[in-house]
Amino acid sequence: MKQRDYSFTFGQALSQVHILEQFPLPATILEDSGAIPSQGILLVCDTNTEYIAKKIRGSQNLPLCVLECGEAGKCWTSIERIITAAKSAGLGRDGLFVGIGGGVITDMTSFAASVYMRGARLCLISTTLLGMVDAAVGGKTGFDLLGIKNLAGTFFPASHIYMPMDALKTLPSGEWKSGMAELIKTAVLDSAICNEVSRAETQVSLDKLKALGPVSIANGIPSALGELIERAVLVKGRIVEADPKEQGTERALLNLGHTFGHALEAAAGLGKLSHGEAVAWGMVRSCELGLALGITPENRAREITEIIAAYDYETAAPHPAMKDAAFFMQALAGDKKKKAGKLTFVVPDAQRAVLVSADRIEPQFLEQIIKGELQH
Amino acid sequence: MKQRDYSFTFGQALSQVHILEQFPLPATILEDSGAIPSQGILLVCDTNTEYIAKKIRGSQNLPLCVLECGEAGKCWTSIERIITAAKSAGLGRDGLFVGIGGGVITDMTSFAASVYMRGARLCLISTTLLGMVDAAVGGKTGFDLLGIKNLAGTFFPASHIYMPMDALKTLPSGEWKSGMAELIKTAVLDSAICNEVSRAETQVSLDKLKALGPVSIANGIPSALGELIERAVLVKGRIVEADPKEQGTERALLNLGHTFGHALEAAAGLGKLSHGEAVAWGMVRSCELGLALGITPENRAREITEIIAAYDYETAAPHPAMKDAAFFMQALAGDKKKKAGKLTFVVPDAQRAVLVSADRIEPQFLEQIIKGELQH
Repeated sequence: MKQRDYSFTFGQALSQVHILEQFPLPATILEDSGAIPSQGILLVCDTNTEYIAKKIRGSQNLPLCVLECGEAGKCWTSIERIITAAKSAGLGRDGLFVGIGGGVITDMTSFAASVYMRGARLCLISTTLLGMVDAAVGGKTGFDLLGIKNLAGTFFPASHIYMPMDALKTLPSGEWKSGMAELIKTAVLDSAICNEVSRAETQVSLDKLKALGPVSIANGIPSALGELIERAVLVKGRIVEADPKEQGTERALLNLGHTFGHALEAAAGLGKLSHGEAVAWGMVRSCELGLALGITPENRAREITEIIAAYDYETAAPHPAMKDAAFFMQALAGDKKKKAGKLTFVVPDAQRAVLVSADRIEPQFLEQIIKGELQH
Repeated sequence: MKQRDYSFTFGQALSQVHILEQFPLPATILEDSGAIPSQGILLVCDTNTEYIAKKIRGSQNLPLCVLECGEAGKCWTSIERIITAAKSAGLGRDGLFVGIGGGVITDMTSFAASVYMRGARLCLISTTLLGMVDAAVGGKTGFDLLGIKNLAGTFFPASHIYMPMDALKTLPSGEWKSGMAELIKTAVLDSAICNEVSRAETQVSLDKLKALGPVSIANGIPSALGELIERAVLVKGRIVEADPKEQGTERALLNLGHTFGHALEAAAGLGKLSHGEAVAWGMVRSCELGLALGITPENRAREITEIIAAYDYETAAPHPAMKDAAFFMQALAGDKKKKAGKLTFVVPDAQRAVLVSADRIEPQFLEQIIKGELQH
């Protein structure tokens, strides 16, 4: 495949995405970032992506920080390990952090780079489907605290984000599943949010996802998937450009399925459910909410729910991993996107999605939705 | 005294400084910040400023987070305590953090606010001379890590910074001393860096500081001191406006005395020496370096050193608190303002100060300076 490059401007930061076949070479990363070896460079990965980091490093003696993998390690202790490794590697504030992995590693490496001496250089190598279509693009960084996902974080876009298709060749099935949910979300939103790039032939659509079906990579990455990833990057990038710090309503649309999803992740115990599984389930709940409010047409809700089921996600409520509805409601009430103490939900409408303030919704009604007690 | 207000634009952020007689009321703080009570508000102070926080709070039941005082508590544990208190107090991302104290408290509260849900609202009430003339203005936040001052931090200017002169009435003598060093630094730099506001009659000058002498506040705050504080705020604010993230050379001038000073603080053990004592000693070393390089005229170096001695700071090298020259040199080499692996020093010239790259300086020569072994 030919390399494709996209440039985005997030606030004052320029962020370039490179979708390519193979892993980038250290020389390319250094040159792209404008860093020189004497300023210091640190590779960060987890035990899952260590083999990729070592492949990239090749015979060069670049310092490497290997973290435990998984959401449970998305905590201050890991951030401190990254910072300690950076200091040992002699990084100055013009030193370069290179995060190699999925969303957990890129979020944490980005956070560490954003606070290290008040901000160092940052490149990311996104190695999972979820990372490519969502986490790695847009500048959100963070780690979990007090059992709340990304309670601490910053906005700090990487200057360069590499998405090597080769990384997907060894992606475990759970990771595929986690990523597909964000692609489905993009398909629901696509026509909505950036008309400029929204032509039917390139759009991430529910029809295309239906045609693709659960991914088999026995014969390499399907070209249709590569195109969908590329398109998802563009959609996400343009939305974030319009609202880099989520101060308006544009970027908030990307939270479709996430308000319910994050609360489910917390209620299940952080790290027990994949982000994608939680978001997929959350999108079904958003459809139910939209149906009840008269915002989501019945056929639209059915189409979205069917494709989520087709990709083998749990669609029924209550979710089997949800231990306690009261804890779920508490997590929901603590959602960090609250404004003036009010929650906001994103629900699909006929074409795309809209924001709905929780003013319009009784808590008891939400509880019925998550418990599956809603009478249709 | 009449309230004076200054507005600064640091990058995309607007920061307003209010120099006033009495502590601001909660209603004023809320109104200025644009926050409403339902978004949540948290006061942060230390055991030294708790009485001020309680005075400000009055009969209102506002949540208060009280930290241990001093540099030793400037660590992640304290940041986590602030964030935990904010979550308990129900702050959303539009909630308001109010830091009440000296530089340690305002730096940490600002850091916590900058990462809480990726950035909340922030006001500061600066209660020390050092905080007023330096730490509280300009958006630098941070905490110490791995024994390095502010190794982790962000740029996050408070929207409103209050400087109540009443807070100075109970300032311990050590705190006066710590603040005066930054005023002396301002006097060395003043004519240099913002001609717009640099007229002899308003300038912070060495002559004025000589006339003021070590501060006695038995009869209230001398009006000359109030004017110097005001002027120092203006000088610092204008310099930061020109270079908010210290990417150019403008803001770097504010590091006069700090390269040597931070290394001394680290070598003495963080928190053992006040920041001001370390900076004052560092300025004398900068004069010696400037003299040796032919940049600082002899009479200028003498004048600066004399005023530092007049305010009862240690001027001789080695500093009595410096336990180990090798450790000092190592701390110096790890300075976070290094660029491309190179240290930069700020040294006074005839009028003001200039930046000197360590390229021009042998490490052995620096070691002679800090050991007091330099032959004049």
